[in-house]
Amino acid sequence: MFDERVAKVLANMEEMGLEQMLISDPPSIFYLTGRWILPNERLLALYLNKNGNHKLFVNKLFTVDGDIGIEKVWFSDTDPGCRMISDCTDHTKPLGIDKKMAARFLLELMELGAGTGYKNASRCVDAARQVKDPDEQEKMIRASKLNDAAMAQFRGLIKEGVTESEVAAGMNRIYKELGTEGPSFGPLVSFGANAAIGHHKPDSTVLKEGDCVLFDVGCKKDNYCSDMTRTFFYKHASEKGREVYEIVKKANLAAQAAMKPGMQFCQVDRIARSIIEEAGYGPYFTHRLGHCIGIEVHDAGDVSAVNTDYIKEGMIFSCEPGIYLPGELGVRIEDLMLITPDGAVSLNQDSKELEIING
Amino acid sequence: MFDERVAKVLANMEEMGLEQMLISDPPSIFYLTGRWILPNERLLALYLNKNGNHKLFVNKLFTVDGDIGIEKVWFSDTDPGCRMISDCTDHTKPLGIDKKMAARFLLELMELGAGTGYKNASRCVDAARQVKDPDEQEKMIRASKLNDAAMAQFRGLIKEGVTESEVAAGMNRIYKELGTEGPSFGPLVSFGANAAIGHHKPDSTVLKEGDCVLFDVGCKKDNYCSDMTRTFFYKHASEKGREVYEIVKKANLAAQAAMKPGMQFCQVDRIARSIIEEAGYGPYFTHRLGHCIGIEVHDAGDVSAVNTDYIKEGMIFSCEPGIYLPGELGVRIEDLMLITPDGAVSLNQDSKELEIING
Repeated sequence: MFDERVAKVLANMEEMGLEQMLISDPPSIFYLTGRWILPNERLLALYLNKNGNHKLFVNKLFTVDGDIGIEKVWFSDTDPGCRMISDCTDHTKPLGIDKKMAARFLLELMELGAGTGYKNASRCVDAARQVKDPDEQEKMIRASKLNDAAMAQFRGLIKEGVTESEVAAGMNRIYKELGTEGPSFGPLVSFGANAAIGHHKPDSTVLKEGDCVLFDVGCKKDNYCSDMTRTFFYKHASEKGREVYEIVKKANLAAQAAMKPGMQFCQVDRIARSIIEEAGYGPYFTHRLGHCIGIEVHDAGDVSAVNTDYIKEGMIFSCEPGIYLPGELGVRIEDLMLITPDGAVSLNQDSKELEIING
Repeated sequence: MFDERVAKVLANMEEMGLEQMLISDPPSIFYLTGRWILPNERLLALYLNKNGNHKLFVNKLFTVDGDIGIEKVWFSDTDPGCRMISDCTDHTKPLGIDKKMAARFLLELMELGAGTGYKNASRCVDAARQVKDPDEQEKMIRASKLNDAAMAQFRGLIKEGVTESEVAAGMNRIYKELGTEGPSFGPLVSFGANAAIGHHKPDSTVLKEGDCVLFDVGCKKDNYCSDMTRTFFYKHASEKGREVYEIVKKANLAAQAAMKPGMQFCQVDRIARSIIEEAGYGPYFTHRLGHCIGIEVHDAGDVSAVNTDYIKEGMIFSCEPGIYLPGELGVRIEDLMLITPDGAVSLNQDSKELEIING
């Protein structure tokens, strides 16, 4: 167990009036124990109690190497896992639950009366994970450096006659060659009008002259994620394309320049959104400005109009304004930002100047 | 919506005394609507009501093409998704919940009083999915044929000096070349003593003469999964290896010969387990005999000692006995079985004779 991280979670629990909680999300368990366990449909839970009597409940099918500093409670497929947990919880106190626990386990724990009440206490661990410690910052910087190196090579994949899925395959190959643990999510590659479709998946669309080329890509290194978006133009850029590009870039830079500890996430979103709205493209910026990132590509925490949480030193999140004109084009420019005492630094150094690629 | 499938779910709900339920699991939503929507951390829910007023609640970020025969209720990241669901549910009736709904949504729906009670009603959709209709059977047969073709080629990857992860990479390439949608799970490749470790992941272990070589692999085709295990020996097999192999093969064949509609899953498990126990290896067969499979590699439904459910015509599940001798070797032989009116047929034709590969 990483004692300082556990202490942060316990402090957050105390603030929420909780003495005990169950954490089932594998990335959160990794964050606290240093062990990646992917149980698929099976039960996995880390029980934390302010009295220090923490336990890890894990199926015998999985390997949890070495001493993790707390008791491991092993069970088999035929053991009553939830009952074994309920036998350990304090039935006279409320029980915190993390946000991803599957309903089948939660409903069974409720039936067993594992606590006096059940509270979504994910914030306790999510808030701890949002603020990266020095070791995590170093890993995040390294993952983004690799992503910069990858993006430099990805430009070379833009060629006459290529399809989106061919480019995506090339990206996966390059990530491997660079010594990453692979992409942190399936690379998003969109040509022309496809770039205006949210979460468009690379398909057999062939690159055409004048297309915008949107790459939203990231890799994993040492279990930490990178994530960056660049939008290029193939052979030439339309006037509209250029206009939209410069507005998005302006929004990206303005938000980054303003970020600092003590601001609210929604204020940062507002800065970028205002620039796009003032240029008349408000309705075409259809998503939040960004999201926290770390062990997961989408760590808890939105940079959005509705998140009034305060930004803290050590947080890392994406800044990714975009404008999407249906049937025509889409432009998004995304960097990962690390919050420092006085402001923020971008973990991505890849150029954001409008770039025409002739391939 | 696939009306016959929805009707099966509604009939199961009625049996459970439920008039309404929420389904959040993407594979179940695909099963009922024909649309794959992967919302990651975002809310997604299919609401079914016996009055026919079904609705799909989905974030605007995702694409749900065409008419699906029911109302789509769109919401954005800043909309109160759970409240929008709760505004539609009948607050005077219990609400069924599928097993995978994330706690954060379930706890919020409970706070909103979306139903008079909350019941794990996954069985309603899981039981429907367990029995494959003709279209699904055809897709499962096709996926397993491709897996047979792949396994034939995988033998060629067993070569002097190769590592487990190199073999796994080769498998992914072969699956792609065969026109599948890729592996249905990360290929498990284990050499020698690694084959005795549950869920061992391919690593840099180098193949040695005398090693057993365990391949547990599957691919996806048309969104349906295959899954098969074969265990070979490299250059020669020890006496112990041969003995264990023949016991596992006997257990595999005996269970397959006995399967038929009307038996219980636990009875099938018992047949295979008895053979291994009688040979003195009971403690070394450390897992259930199998699992149901379809849209997911692990569909709901264990072939295990504790599952007293009855086997029905049209079900497809794995039959995968194994013996694992720690520090020494592991042997598992797995086929997918389709239950027919009189018995069962294997979807895998790949040979199960003990095979020495010289590479």
